[in-house]
Amino acid sequence: MDAATATAVQLRLTPELQYVLRLADTGLVHAQRLSEWCGHAPVLEEDIALTNMALDLLGQARALLTHAAALEGQGLDEDRLAYWREHDQFFNLTLVEQPLRKPGAHAPGGDFADTVLRNFVLASWLKAACAALQTSRDETLAGIAAKSLKEARYHQQHNADWVQRLGDGTEESARRMAAAVQRLWPYTAEMFEHDAVDEAARTSGLGPARQDLRAAWQAEVAEVFAAAGLTLPPDTPFRSTGTQGRHSEHLGYLLAEMQVLQRQHPGGRW
Amino acid sequence: MDAATATAVQLRLTPELQYVLRLADTGLVHAQRLSEWCGHAPVLEEDIALTNMALDLLGQARALLTHAAALEGQGLDEDRLAYWREHDQFFNLTLVEQPLRKPGAHAPGGDFADTVLRNFVLASWLKAACAALQTSRDETLAGIAAKSLKEARYHQQHNADWVQRLGDGTEESARRMAAAVQRLWPYTAEMFEHDAVDEAARTSGLGPARQDLRAAWQAEVAEVFAAAGLTLPPDTPFRSTGTQGRHSEHLGYLLAEMQVLQRQHPGGRW
Repeated sequence: MDAATATAVQLRLTPELQYVLRLADTGLVHAQRLSEWCGHAPVLEEDIALTNMALDLLGQARALLTHAAALEGQGLDEDRLAYWREHDQFFNLTLVEQPLRKPGAHAPGGDFADTVLRNFVLASWLKAACAALQTSRDETLAGIAAKSLKEARYHQQHNADWVQRLGDGTEESARRMAAAVQRLWPYTAEMFEHDAVDEAARTSGLGPARQDLRAAWQAEVAEVFAAAGLTLPPDTPFRSTGTQGRHSEHLGYLLAEMQVLQRQHPGGRW
Repeated sequence: MDAATATAVQLRLTPELQYVLRLADTGLVHAQRLSEWCGHAPVLEEDIALTNMALDLLGQARALLTHAAALEGQGLDEDRLAYWREHDQFFNLTLVEQPLRKPGAHAPGGDFADTVLRNFVLASWLKAACAALQTSRDETLAGIAAKSLKEARYHQQHNADWVQRLGDGTEESARRMAAAVQRLWPYTAEMFEHDAVDEAARTSGLGPARQDLRAAWQAEVAEVFAAAGLTLPPDTPFRSTGTQGRHSEHLGYLLAEMQVLQRQHPGGRW
């Protein structure tokens, strides 16, 4: 690699490219988060399963990034796209980037209930997306989707089993699974938003709009939740929660500045 | 101050105390943000006005914190509450802690349009709250509210003038004011949420529930927006926006870890 390519990528973004990058980046970032579990899962078999799922997702992301690079047309490749884009040129669902750590818990990978729930809702979404993408007018994309569909089916089933096992398990596991639902649900809305990128994809036959995936997703999730004894929340919007003592990341910096003098010199007076 | 008090405060939190701290902390954090403008406002007169408003809000917060300390009953005082609480023991509206800086802009205090709009919506809210709090069964709180009401009226009028002046000003000022509305609106929902703290306050005669303030607030805001040529947005919920390239704070850390090797050793191969 020469010096000219050791610089941040500036994408020539089209709706088509953004559509493919949404899928690619969702897989890539999800794989990165899942890989944090490597060596930390509650049982050895699940450690291997989570790592294998991460590898599947990474494989899908690689194929999609290579295809995105071809669509972009400036001679980029999967590595340039993965390692040299800035954060505002990533288009993954916000859900996959969440660290999912419980407040006060610092175990890599966070809470296992959060992780299996996230895996489950994402795999259900990817399964619906890949099924529809098999008939894309873009043959490369259709081929990637056909291969990914098999993996998504396995991921969906595996994690559905965990959601049911924990949701319908002990009092403690049911409590944690219900808490995971509360934490993650506001992020699921983005899976079914509709914008110009979706509209263009649907109209041109590139692939489904996100809102086209909702019915299939909801049916799968409702069935597993019923078996797990979990309540399907309404489409919950975010609300700011400062008045409950749960703050944005900005308050910490503000307090650090406001409080530092008194904390360094307790009782200090002018 | 002895060593025993140079430690983080652990509040004995009651609904009543939380109610008072919501008001106190909203004023305190808002004052801190406004004070960032000191020496940076676009005209000298406004620099003085913003700083004076910050001092008014700080005065209100001091009175409320002193009262909160009395309610809490463990011998705390305003300084202990301001400087020795952790972030999860602050109960301000999330709106006031936002830095309101435009992406890429690093001027202290951020965009002036954001600031006058935030001042305006908050002063309209505080005006409605203080008017109702004057008849609180808690005489100290009623007295603080009566004094604060005069200041809130002035803040509301002063900032309403700016909202109108900028909204109905040049093309550039109208564009910035409309952008400020877009940015801030999702945070206004929290001003009118209803929970057990509000319910207890209303039932016991301590003060209004937040939802009781909505009608008066909406009337004031609608009037000023109409004069400013601004559109009053619907009650907009947050949505996650990763697919648009706007991410939570977590993606940056994830990318830093994922990208560091390739960026330090461009083109490196195993």
